[in-house]
Amino acid sequence: MTSLTSLDTPAAIVDRRRMQANIARMQQRMDALGVRFRPHVKTSKCLPVVQAQIAAGAQGITVSTLKEAEQFFAAGVTDILYAVGITPDKLGKVTALRRRGCQLKIITDNVASAEAIAAFGKAQGEVFEVWIEIDCDGHRSGIKPDDNALLLGVARALQDGGMTIGGVITHAGSSYELNTPAALEAMAEQERAGCVAAADCLRQAGIACPGVSIGSTPTALHARHLDGVTEVRAGVYVFFDLVMHNVGVCRRDELALSVLTTVIGHQREKGWAIVDAGWMAMSRDRGTAKQKHDYGFGLVCDIDGKELGGYVMSGANQEHGIIALEQGLDADIATRFPIGTRLRILPNHACATGAQFPEYQVLAADTDSSETWPRFYGW
Amino acid sequence: MTSLTSLDTPAAIVDRRRMQANIARMQQRMDALGVRFRPHVKTSKCLPVVQAQIAAGAQGITVSTLKEAEQFFAAGVTDILYAVGITPDKLGKVTALRRRGCQLKIITDNVASAEAIAAFGKAQGEVFEVWIEIDCDGHRSGIKPDDNALLLGVARALQDGGMTIGGVITHAGSSYELNTPAALEAMAEQERAGCVAAADCLRQAGIACPGVSIGSTPTALHARHLDGVTEVRAGVYVFFDLVMHNVGVCRRDELALSVLTTVIGHQREKGWAIVDAGWMAMSRDRGTAKQKHDYGFGLVCDIDGKELGGYVMSGANQEHGIIALEQGLDADIATRFPIGTRLRILPNHACATGAQFPEYQVLAADTDSSETWPRFYGW
Repeated sequence: MTSLTSLDTPAAIVDRRRMQANIARMQQRMDALGVRFRPHVKTSKCLPVVQAQIAAGAQGITVSTLKEAEQFFAAGVTDILYAVGITPDKLGKVTALRRRGCQLKIITDNVASAEAIAAFGKAQGEVFEVWIEIDCDGHRSGIKPDDNALLLGVARALQDGGMTIGGVITHAGSSYELNTPAALEAMAEQERAGCVAAADCLRQAGIACPGVSIGSTPTALHARHLDGVTEVRAGVYVFFDLVMHNVGVCRRDELALSVLTTVIGHQREKGWAIVDAGWMAMSRDRGTAKQKHDYGFGLVCDIDGKELGGYVMSGANQEHGIIALEQGLDADIATRFPIGTRLRILPNHACATGAQFPEYQVLAADTDSSETWPRFYGW
Repeated sequence: MTSLTSLDTPAAIVDRRRMQANIARMQQRMDALGVRFRPHVKTSKCLPVVQAQIAAGAQGITVSTLKEAEQFFAAGVTDILYAVGITPDKLGKVTALRRRGCQLKIITDNVASAEAIAAFGKAQGEVFEVWIEIDCDGHRSGIKPDDNALLLGVARALQDGGMTIGGVITHAGSSYELNTPAALEAMAEQERAGCVAAADCLRQAGIACPGVSIGSTPTALHARHLDGVTEVRAGVYVFFDLVMHNVGVCRRDELALSVLTTVIGHQREKGWAIVDAGWMAMSRDRGTAKQKHDYGFGLVCDIDGKELGGYVMSGANQEHGIIALEQGLDADIATRFPIGTRLRILPNHACATGAQFPEYQVLAADTDSSETWPRFYGW
């Protein structure tokens, strides 16, 4: 592969064929389950990736920052859900986007914010579309599915204040801690049932609740049915990563993101090869440390992306990575990986690793050439 | 402080007064020890920060990427040491910089690279200035101080190939794992003695070795003398961070970098406040996890930078941080930190946290206004 030998390293490599297969797999599953699919674009922050998701059938996107909303709206995406609890100080930016034609939806899980949204909307003459966040698994934000008083309090503050309730939304983030199909199926059902119950509570109180939005990559791939759900969100599936492999939702040869690096030295007696990708390139994410297989800072493949059999990045400084056997010591590592050898490292967490790079180098599906896709960062 | 209430969050805040004090402290120490100081700019990647270091007396800079070299050379800095082992594929960029007038120094620790440097230099008519990397503490790259055969082999490959040997260079990275003055003093002496011994070995063999470059923030601040050393490098001292506080080289009120964030919700029964800075803003660095005081993802201060007494970021998702008491449960956290409250989080690792932001918001030393300093990332 000529291009990978001439790229400056470290570089973030996207295997386009694998990415397209990941997109197709998730979209087909969502189509079969009869729900809209609204991918979370925080993983890639990259327009060609999002365009591929939309071309495959995605309807709208989910964002984790208002910068993502601004960037993708500027590129023509109009149906956007900002899935982090809103605070009053962000409503000016939200209003500006909506007035330019962005169908930007916001979320909240508390009465204080709901009242602030309504007050701001009234003062500005803006009717915000607000989704109410449900906490289906205790891992983060949201209203407990059985806390009807709080749920109705938030809904009434929005409704009485003249805002539109878009629906209820949840995210089973604790699915990342599971690793059996049975546990993932159970978590998917808990996510679905909790969110549908919240919607039913609103409807029984006479409050319209058109949308029921759930999702995480592991639960989306393990739900047996999605009765009552209108849309699913998932993000990391587009690239997958070693954490997702440990969860059990992808094979290692489905990982579409890797970091290209070059061998710069050795410590022979320790069995180390040292490369020019450290934690700045891989990110500090050690998500596999507490999973069934700890891959250090990443799993080592050759330049063509083939696994090399038990070599991991066992340690990292800012711009140095230490490559070694997981088990034992390779006394011949300097011969095996001479100075200048190029390797590709599969990351623990695609969202964190990709964020360190201003662009992806993309391997085309049908040739050995690469193209560059810009990505953005910051807030 | 009006400006901090109106900034978009999350934001990286630099306290300029603290930064200037950190710069002055290190420079005065280097002046007293009689060595040149060559700060490592990988921590800030920000021109105004580097200009402040040079104004205080720094002579030249150290970089961790060629992008840093290119950016700072474009801004007028000419004396630059690229302190990551060079590989042949990067020599084209190095040559281009040198031909534009950059006094760019490169490093190596092996014969294969030394020969490749010499061959490339000969083919291009370029005499590279090469420093030989010494491994004073076994933590990463470099030639062991007592491996005279390898040291002389590398030096002769360079010398016979017509290159210039700038000197020997080492970095006591394992000083980050220590936390007593006695251990730090001992490590500083080990770093100094190992590097000076390597220089002596070269000189005894008739090879000129003008430079002896050592350094890390903890050892630079604990060396009792630097006999035989010509220059010191250190980076993170410019901002300091919680890891450095645990090592014992700064007070917490000397930390110059923090992340400004806004409270977006609560889980009262768990004693949680949820903020809009998660691991994307703080970085995934958990460097204090294995130190004497684990601060989670960071230590919580109020908007003015005053500590709040035992609140840390105990967990983080990409754009959500969980704020809680380190010990016990604050049942009143929703009252204490209402929606919209602004907090500042001191980071574990300034190099990793700063890298997530396109700019620093800088608090001026003498007013309550802030200015914006751009920083760069990538390779």
